[in-house]
Amino acid sequence: MSARQSLARRVFSALAEGTADPPGVTRAAYGPSEQAAHDLARHEAEALGCEIAIDPAGNLLMTLPGSDRRAQRLLLGSHLDSVPHGGNYDGAAGVVAGLALIAEARARGFMPPRDVTVVAFRAEEAAWFPLSYLGSEAALGRLAAALLETPRSDTGQSLAEHMRAAGFDPEGVARGEALLRPDDIGAFVEVHIEQGPVLVGADLPLGLVTAINGGFRYMQARAVGAWDHSGATPRRHRQDAVLGLTDLVTGLEAAWDRIEAAGQAVTLTFGQVATDPALHGGSRVAGEVAFSLDVRGADAGVLDELRRDCARLRDEIAETRGVVIDFGPEFTWPVARMTPALIARLEACAQTAGIPILRMPSGAGHDAAVMAGAGIASAMLFVRNAEGSHNPDEAMDLDDFAAAVSVLWQFLNTWP
Amino acid sequence: MSARQSLARRVFSALAEGTADPPGVTRAAYGPSEQAAHDLARHEAEALGCEIAIDPAGNLLMTLPGSDRRAQRLLLGSHLDSVPHGGNYDGAAGVVAGLALIAEARARGFMPPRDVTVVAFRAEEAAWFPLSYLGSEAALGRLAAALLETPRSDTGQSLAEHMRAAGFDPEGVARGEALLRPDDIGAFVEVHIEQGPVLVGADLPLGLVTAINGGFRYMQARAVGAWDHSGATPRRHRQDAVLGLTDLVTGLEAAWDRIEAAGQAVTLTFGQVATDPALHGGSRVAGEVAFSLDVRGADAGVLDELRRDCARLRDEIAETRGVVIDFGPEFTWPVARMTPALIARLEACAQTAGIPILRMPSGAGHDAAVMAGAGIASAMLFVRNAEGSHNPDEAMDLDDFAAAVSVLWQFLNTWP
Repeated sequence: MSARQSLARRVFSALAEGTADPPGVTRAAYGPSEQAAHDLARHEAEALGCEIAIDPAGNLLMTLPGSDRRAQRLLLGSHLDSVPHGGNYDGAAGVVAGLALIAEARARGFMPPRDVTVVAFRAEEAAWFPLSYLGSEAALGRLAAALLETPRSDTGQSLAEHMRAAGFDPEGVARGEALLRPDDIGAFVEVHIEQGPVLVGADLPLGLVTAINGGFRYMQARAVGAWDHSGATPRRHRQDAVLGLTDLVTGLEAAWDRIEAAGQAVTLTFGQVATDPALHGGSRVAGEVAFSLDVRGADAGVLDELRRDCARLRDEIAETRGVVIDFGPEFTWPVARMTPALIARLEACAQTAGIPILRMPSGAGHDAAVMAGAGIASAMLFVRNAEGSHNPDEAMDLDDFAAAVSVLWQFLNTWP
Repeated sequence: MSARQSLARRVFSALAEGTADPPGVTRAAYGPSEQAAHDLARHEAEALGCEIAIDPAGNLLMTLPGSDRRAQRLLLGSHLDSVPHGGNYDGAAGVVAGLALIAEARARGFMPPRDVTVVAFRAEEAAWFPLSYLGSEAALGRLAAALLETPRSDTGQSLAEHMRAAGFDPEGVARGEALLRPDDIGAFVEVHIEQGPVLVGADLPLGLVTAINGGFRYMQARAVGAWDHSGATPRRHRQDAVLGLTDLVTGLEAAWDRIEAAGQAVTLTFGQVATDPALHGGSRVAGEVAFSLDVRGADAGVLDELRRDCARLRDEIAETRGVVIDFGPEFTWPVARMTPALIARLEACAQTAGIPILRMPSGAGHDAAVMAGAGIASAMLFVRNAEGSHNPDEAMDLDDFAAAVSVLWQFLNTWP
């Protein structure tokens, strides 16, 4: 077994074991299990002779020195947090791929022309704070200070409090202190499992991301009607929040049909829907339903169109149902295009390595969107993965993962 | 102020104060607050010189002796439990009306020709155990012993455990031991607030119930699809449980339209809808949604028709969405017709008292359904009530309540 394969097996096993939360794994942003994952990565990097640095937000940088230490570095990596009861590979694969590449270089006595830094970002999953990319934004000194007050969904404590409790420096983050500077980075390549079924369907091991979808998300939306007795309230007197929400869902599905018919791809997801257990009952008309709505697409105009559909349906539902839809705060993120020259180079490397690869958009968001947004040449390699992601059943074949590392190895060896 | 008005004000205030759980009141079946309400009623009845008896299920019987103690008695009353954060009058008004009638009789030195018993039933609200009428069934010795194992929704402890903890005798209940025998009861009249807006809309203080709707209820239904990443999973690969449930809701609303167009009245209520907070997320396609469905109507054939609609939609949704609808256990209760001769007598009493009264069906279930089902001549007086019920805002005017007691007084004075 090669150095890279042996490292990958060992680290994935240790991660799965160390952060198990059946079913699946849980690595809460700034929680002890995310820290355990960081400690594990750091331990491996130290064993490989990497230089270690940790920024004020707790992002971990592990650097294999190159022959020219002042030249623009190659940055690899991804995040180590997971959704609750998620899978072992989402995020982690990108960090392990970077470490596997360094292990391979060390095993072969290869010194790269420039520094190779593997970064383990914090807090990428929106499951913990209602925003993605908090760690990578902070890694570039770009996290808006106001976001440090965002409460974590399970604890209610703020991002700043969680950073401080984990031993980091939210004041430094607020001041924009960072270890990564766009000018110092020649390229960022994020390896990540594909979180959908496209590569499995195409029977190909790897994908090369062309763009990361943008979108908008309502995490604290509510449909508000009136609580009433289920049997005693005639239909015309009801303001049933569940029926109001149903109209919104069916109305947006009709909009989805219209957009697909026009040849555009979007996704709409009502991931959380809940009446209040302290108030609801089987014999009570629901007076309020909380819900979330996540809308993603590659075209900003189409996203705006769906925003207008939301407003139109809200007005219609107030009129027809007497139910008020309150979408609450809107979180948005722009479409991020990956760097064409870098895509072309990685495609050539895959070809040289004899590995078929598919150009594809990413429906999911990734830290590479932040890097690209900061003007860093950025690309992503997707690894085929069955059973989707954000669930305990995600299944990446280690041979496919090894193919991604082979592409990186080819890339490093042709790095100017 | 008359004796009955003074008693009503005092008891309603004490109930609201003693069982407050802002917003509203909470009187959990077999909990301390239901017991507090029973203690309050018993205290009032003792002050009025009533005989007190408590059956193995904890139902409270308060009897004003009549001149012929062996003749069939007049039974009045209702339940004292409430839904969580419910209103003060639902159920309680029936018990207070009976006590107010006795207070009036005592104040006027009137001895009725036969015993008048006021009953405070236990556990009527399906919010606590997923079945209604547990107390009144037990009061007649008719509660199926198996139902004693039903867990309470908030504690998970069984009905038998709750009965025992409250000092009662579930074994006696299981053996059918009871203090009420249908043959001993000349008539049962339940005063209850109207739980809908019909009397408010008609501008009338009182209603006279013709029948109590039957229905069926699924309390543990689920729509089961697959958990997936919201952005990365293309539409055709999704098995979105929220969209599957939406199809069920819209399909049943279409059936509701069809039934109303045919001149029949039913109600359909999805009172509880919830994705699992331990698994759901804003960026995760919902793999499962729990829900409840409550269907009520006055026509058994129409209810069967809706049952068939549920099965048809379940099959369609499995086919089109890949989402499995599992309705879980079904609880049913039959349509209960009130006694025509008793309705006619109460209508005549109202007329004599100069109080306008409206014949109407009851969409909500009531203990009178159990009494009628046991062959007891039964009737219900509805008291006008604004703002619906099963919520903290229910609002009964004490003048309307006094009108109901006036009808009872007229009834008692013409009792043969």
